[in-house]
This record gives sequence, structure tokens and C-alpha cells, in this order.
Amino acid sequence: MSEAISYEHVVQYYETDQMGIAHHSNYIRWFEEARIHFFDEIGLGYKESEKMGIISPVLAVEANYKNMSYFQDTVVISVRLTDYSGVRLSLSYEVTDKATGQLRCTGKSKHCFINPEGNVISLKKVAPDRYNTLIKMLEDDNG
Amino acid sequence: MSEAISYEHVVQYYETDQMGIAHHSNYIRWFEEARIHFFDEIGLGYKESEKMGIISPVLAVEANYKNMSYFQDTVVISVRLTDYSGVRLSLSYEVTDKATGQLRCTGKSKHCFINPEGNVISLKKVAPDRYNTLIKMLEDDNG
Amino acid sequence: MSEAISYEHVVQYYETDQMGIAHHSNYIRWFEEARIHFFDEIGLGYKESEKMGIISPVLAVEANYKNMSYFQDTVVISVRLTDYSGVRLSLSYEVTDKATGQLRCTGKSKHCFINPEGNVISLKKVAPDRYNTLIKMLEDDNG
Amino acid sequence: MSEAISYEHVVQYYETDQMGIAHHSNYIRWFEEARIHFFDEIGLGYKESEKMGIISPVLAVEANYKNMSYFQDTVVISVRLTDYSGVRLSLSYEVTDKATGQLRCTGKSKHCFINPEGNVISLKKVAPDRYNTLIKMLEDDNG
Repeated sequence: MSEAISYEHVVQYYETDQMGIAHHSNYIRWFEEARIHFFDEIGLGYKESEKMGIISPVLAVEANYKNMSYFQDTVVISVRLTDYSGVRLSLSYEVTDKATGQLRCTGKSKHCFINPEGNVISLKKVAPDRYNTLIKMLEDDNG
Repeated sequence: MSEAISYEHVVQYYETDQMGIAHHSNYIRWFEEARIHFFDEIGLGYKESEKMGIISPVLAVEANYKNMSYFQDTVVISVRLTDYSGVRLSLSYEVTDKATGQLRCTGKSKHCFINPEGNVISLKKVAPDRYNTLIKMLEDDNG
Repeated sequence: MSEAISYEHVVQYYETDQMGIAHHSNYIRWFEEARIHFFDEIGLGYKESEKMGIISPVLAVEANYKNMSYFQDTVVISVRLTDYSGVRLSLSYEVTDKATGQLRCTGKSKHCFINPEGNVISLKKVAPDRYNTLIKMLEDDNG
Repeated sequence: MSEAISYEHVVQYYETDQMGIAHHSNYIRWFEEARIHFFDEIGLGYKESEKMGIISPVLAVEANYKNMSYFQDTVVISVRLTDYSGVRLSLSYEVTDKATGQLRCTGKSKHCFINPEGNVISLKKVAPDRYNTLIKMLEDDNG
């Protein structure tokens, strides 16, 4: 598991539902916000990746809701790289309330890399620098 | 103004906000749903248009909220073509509650036609059949 | 596992992303649409439940994406009750393309029942008819 | 017209559509984000208002799209109070790209104040401090 990279999101009014809480589907979007920030931080930004023809679809996502989030809460989403096989990449998420530290949600996602034609690509061949960045992140922390 | 073409939408739980009503931003999305249905019905479907390289961005949109909509309400969105200059196209929307007929919202939108490079195109030149369909719709009703 | 109850959703333009596909977060919303339909069909509608002071928050959700969905695809979401302990309730989801039958996504969700104060309630005590409906659904199919 | 109060939003991946741009409905949500920030800044925060039983629904909204916004653009939304009759309040919005200053969208919204029962209330009677804040904002700038 890599070190965590944190990202902050303020719960918007349009993200609430009639239960008076942030609708659960938004956490999946916050995971994406935090994941994009994570990849930007480690030098593997989505925008540049898409320009290089490397697309990274979501293969699986899960969220475990622990406590509710409310309008204008600032939540901190911590992202870690948990696994990278050369083909599949796994991330974990932890959402906490910034003010209280209360755990709101944990989650996971799995991804692969494809080209614009939709074929799975090996990052090791197509973008060895990017491959090495990911491998190094896992090694540094597991070592 | 053309004849109205109606489209139905059921208010979803995830469309509600903590005021206990459908969030106002969703009406803009319902306008789009109804507009896409409108163009499908008159034979100018978005999907086929995009394949032909004709994209129709939104230039302006407005909504006037009259009454609130609630979870599981079925709302009827009636769309009319109100103007077409050959370059710009205007539509009007009326959202009513299906069960009671109560007026919920009225709206307008303006559109043009562009090619994938982002240049404004004349439908009359690029797709005369589509141009004629629109002109005829306005004539039939105004005549 | 109970019998499946199916629900249809048409992929909207505003649900697509710049990858040209339905954004993965929407499946979580389609699960909700289908779940609400499921509970309506078995006589445990959300709306009536909320009036009775029974709220059913999402404890966990997961989605496994198999194939992409595109603008205007009609997807069929099949929902099954997979487990009910008297406190926790589990559902499974299968999203297929209506036109081709292609599997798009599978998923699961877990729920409990709480009162408006946020305390977990036993359906068996508070709403025995509703409890029996769920138990019977599981028995009928497993028997 | 009051002085402008500015708010920044980064365009999210989930806000893009298959045209490769931020979907037009998101601007209505960004207006809300910026409006909530505006009211927080002038000491009339939504959260406190709702606790006081003052709800501020949207009566009307409009957006005029000038240029497209893209994934990861930082947009600046400037909000001004343009009118306040004691009952109805009008705001204007200007969305520009932070990096280039390019104008992306202009907009307007109208609001009133209601109590939780849905009746229109006079801020002058119910919350004179809040009333005065708004009147003063308009005077300062128009004077």
C-alpha cells in the first residue's frame, strides 16, 4: 500500500437529498475527484494520459458508508495505491470529516489502462516511466 | 410556434435536495431529456446528427419555477419550437404535474448547429432535409 | 435469493462523460431507481415507508463494470433480495443492454432500517407486515 | 448592483459530457455554489438561515453560454446582488476561465424568502438585520 494523498471536498447543497444528507452516489464522484488529484500529484495526470491515448476506466468501485455527511461539511478523501499488477490497479479511499475527524466512508476502486480503441494496454510497454512510478510507490511503502 | 411534443419524467430520489423537493438544476436536465425526445420524434435525432457531424450546443437556457416537484411525481415536459432563423433555434418548455396538471416550471432554450471543429454551420446547406423539417414545423402551426 | 424484478432506464445525454460513455457513478443512481421500483412492486414503497418514519439508508454499495453503456441505450436493471437478517438487507443488481442482452454491470447494496432520529429499528416490531413480506420473498425462492 | 464576490470551481471529470465539455446544466449548480459562498461572505449563510426557518428557493434562473469549459479548468464565478425589493432578490453571475480570463457564461437568478410552511416572508419583519445587510449592499454600490 502506498502513502496516502489527501484531497478536500466541500459538500454542496445540490449534493444533499431529502434525507438531509449527502446522497450516497456523490461519494463515488468524490472518489473520482480524489483519484484524479492523486494521479496529478504523482505525475500521472488524467489530462496528459488521455492526450497520450491512455484511458483508465473504472472496472469496479465499492463504498462502505459509516456516518452521514451534511451540507457544507468539508470532507477529506485519502487515496492510496493498494495494488498494481502491471495490468490492473487498485486504490483505496477513506473519507473523514475535516472538522471532527469522524470516519464517513471507506472505499475501493479497480482500474485498467486501455487505448482509445478500447484495447487493454501494458503501461510497461507503452509508458515505462508511468509504470515505474506506480511500481516504485508500492515498493517504497511496502519495503 | 410549433405543436407541442410531450415527454414524461419521474422525479428520482437522487434528484431531491434537503428542502425535500426536486433540486432546481434538474429541470435543466429534464428540458434536455424532453428536447432530445422532441428531435427524435421529428426525425432529427441527436445520435444521428452527431454521426453526421452536426452538434447542437446550448447557447442559452432559462427556467421559471412556479411550483415545487416532489419525489416520484411524474412530470410532463411539453416542448415547442418557437423560432428558427436558419442559424439559431429556440424552444420553449412547460413542465406540469401529470396527476394534477399543476404548472411546475416554464422555460426556454436557444441552440445553434456547429461541426466537430466548433464552427457554426448552416443546416440549409449541410442538411437541407433537416432544415426543411424545422421550417415546415413552424409554418404549419403559424399558418 | 428472491425472484428478480426488472426496471428500465434510458441513458441520458447528461449522464455521458468525455470518454463518450455513461459515467460510472450513474450506475449507483440506476441501482437506486431500480431498488425504489423493487420496493414499490413488493408493497414496501419508499414514500409510504418515509411517512411511517422508516428510512432505509445505504450501508454499502458496489459495482463491477463489465461493458460500457452509451447515450440512448435502454438498460434493464434486475434487482434481487439476496439476504435479510431482520436488521440488514442485501440486494443484488444486474444491468444488461435491452437491445443486445449484453451484461453491462453487476452490483450489490446493503441497507438497514432507521427511524428519523437515526436509530436502527427492527422491522419485525415496527412493521411486522413488511418484515413478513421480505422473509416470504426469500423463502419462496430458496424453498 | 453590489460589488462582486468571487468563487472558484474546478471542472470535474464527472461534469463533462460526450461533447468533451462541461455539461451546461452544471453551470446552474456552479451558480448555486457561488451564491451560497456569496451569502456566507455577507453574513447571511444558508445553513444559519435554514436553522432560523428562512428558506430561499430559486424562482428563476438563466444562463447564457459564451464559450465552453473543459475538464480541470478553474472557473471563477462572480456574483452580484442586482436588485432587492424586500420580497424578491436578484443576483447576476459571470463565469470566466481563471487562466485566460475568457468569458464562459453569464447568468441571473431570482429568489424569495419563505418559511418552512412555504409562505413568503418579509425579511424586514422576520430578520431586520439581514434585510439591512442586503439594502446596504445595494446602496453602497449604487450610491
